Amino acid sequence: MLGPLFKSISLRGLAICPKPGTGFRSGWNVRPHQSFNPGVPSKMYHQEIARAKGLIFRQLFEKISCTYTYILADSHSKEAVIIDPVINEVNRDVQLIQELGLKLLYAANTHCHADHVTGSGLLKKILPGCRSVIAKDSGALADIHIQGGSTINFGDFYLEARSTPGHTDGCLTYILNDQSMAFTGDALLIRGCGRTDFQQGCPRKLYNSVHSQIFTLPGDCMLYPAHDYTGRTVTTVEEEKKFNPRFTKPLQEFIDLMNNLNLPKPAQIDVAVPANLQCGIQDYPVATGP
Amino acid sequence: MLGPLFKSISLRGLAICPKPGTGFRSGWNVRPHQSFNPGVPSKMYHQEIARAKGLIFRQLFEKISCTYTYILADSHSKEAVIIDPVINEVNRDVQLIQELGLKLLYAANTHCHADHVTGSGLLKKILPGCRSVIAKDSGALADIHIQGGSTINFGDFYLEARSTPGHTDGCLTYILNDQSMAFTGDALLIRGCGRTDFQQGCPRKLYNSVHSQIFTLPGDCMLYPAHDYTGRTVTTVEEEKKFNPRFTKPLQEFIDLMNNLNLPKPAQIDVAVPANLQCGIQDYPVATGP
Repeated sequence: MLGPLFKSISLRGLAICPKPGTGFRSGWNVRPHQSFNPGVPSKMYHQEIARAKGLIFRQLFEKISCTYTYILADSHSKEAVIIDPVINEVNRDVQLIQELGLKLLYAANTHCHADHVTGSGLLKKILPGCRSVIAKDSGALADIHIQGGSTINFGDFYLEARSTPGHTDGCLTYILNDQSMAFTGDALLIRGCGRTDFQQGCPRKLYNSVHSQIFTLPGDCMLYPAHDYTGRTVTTVEEEKKFNPRFTKPLQEFIDLMNNLNLPKPAQIDVAVPANLQCGIQDYPVATGP
Repeated sequence: MLGPLFKSISLRGLAICPKPGTGFRSGWNVRPHQSFNPGVPSKMYHQEIARAKGLIFRQLFEKISCTYTYILADSHSKEAVIIDPVINEVNRDVQLIQELGLKLLYAANTHCHADHVTGSGLLKKILPGCRSVIAKDSGALADIHIQGGSTINFGDFYLEARSTPGHTDGCLTYILNDQSMAFTGDALLIRGCGRTDFQQGCPRKLYNSVHSQIFTLPGDCMLYPAHDYTGRTVTTVEEEKKFNPRFTKPLQEFIDLMNNLNLPKPAQIDVAVPANLQCGIQDYPVATGP
């Protein structure tokens, strides 16, 4: 069982979360390792929290944009978070959430996607307790703005947000409290990375983000990306440090490579970006269920 | 560390595995709970084996037939098995196997698929130590024929094969030694099941297989199917017992439903079935690598 120290994190997170309708959207930057137990090294927290059992975890795939959506939940409290939902698969996701008896607290986006419309808004309509979350630096609207160092609490677990800009300025990587898994968005893909030729893209920033914020995680940390186009589902820090054909290059070679990809414009960008800049705040028609 | 009792299972399995070229293809039915330690209840084995650490596990997706391929390996010995490889993704799978430093022992098929060509033959050509495995009841050729009760050993782990006919006569479900995960092929899909209108299909057999061989596993056993068409990746025994719209019906209703699906013929059946009946024994051109 987890001791009272652990519980305090969860309760603290819940207490500080802004409530819908309060207008508190300018920031949500809870740092559990600093604010409430300044004398306890953060490593202790990870070791304590790693003992927590009962994580429900599901990876889901959206075929058109090859996007992965993730559901994480505490099997005891049933509190849940969904990462990078896609609008056209929301009914599927809602059905699963309801069948598993989960209480969806947050629809958290790794960034403002250009290749699909987020499901955050539609999820909020169907599951009213859910609030949309995105990085403040994304420039998008959302119920809750977070930044590097923020945590997203669900039951006895939390996700730590790390700022990993480069694909966009607002890219976040979400890391499970015990550092056993991380959700890298488009910053790091399996043997690849997101493009850097629009939406504040900057190869230098991306290279530094991945090396300083992701490659410093434990080697066996499982990395779950926002996309894969060849049917792979997961990788590890160790694997990417060894085999990622982009990030194993020296910085300048990486920059030259990224500046010369000459990729076509994403098919859905003109619809997706304006919609995603209103991350879950715009009105969608309410679906009648799956 | 695992005790000598556990090691004996692994060594036994390796010792009894037929070697390529010996012509020993008529049967491979090693029952670890009976042959070598008859006095030890099988439950003890599961508890011992469940302590084994270091399973490498990867789920891979093939888009055309929406097939899942699985790689399981022992992180210490690097011995590995691949379940249901697809021929057109073999290069991807080989690249991953090589990058992870795995020694692929077996390409195991849950059954003779009708919707895609198995990658078993091409894998054997590229990775010569690999042998193809399929149920004897499938009627297909293979290096190794197994049946319900057989085990497939890799390092400190094994997969137990259970006979789950109904989609085809030769359908097997592969269950990891600690019963934490099972690979159900087309017998059980997430909220669905394989069709029963060709290849010895029989709804009554399928219903009984799933209820007696899969639904009797622990409720939290993760079930990994051979396909999903809506982007879901995994389910559990408990979920399917509650929510599978087919297997929650009474038997006669299930039979009536399955006999009236009126599905179109699988697009690749005329190519796939003849190829898969020579599961890894036919000659494929050797790929030059990914």
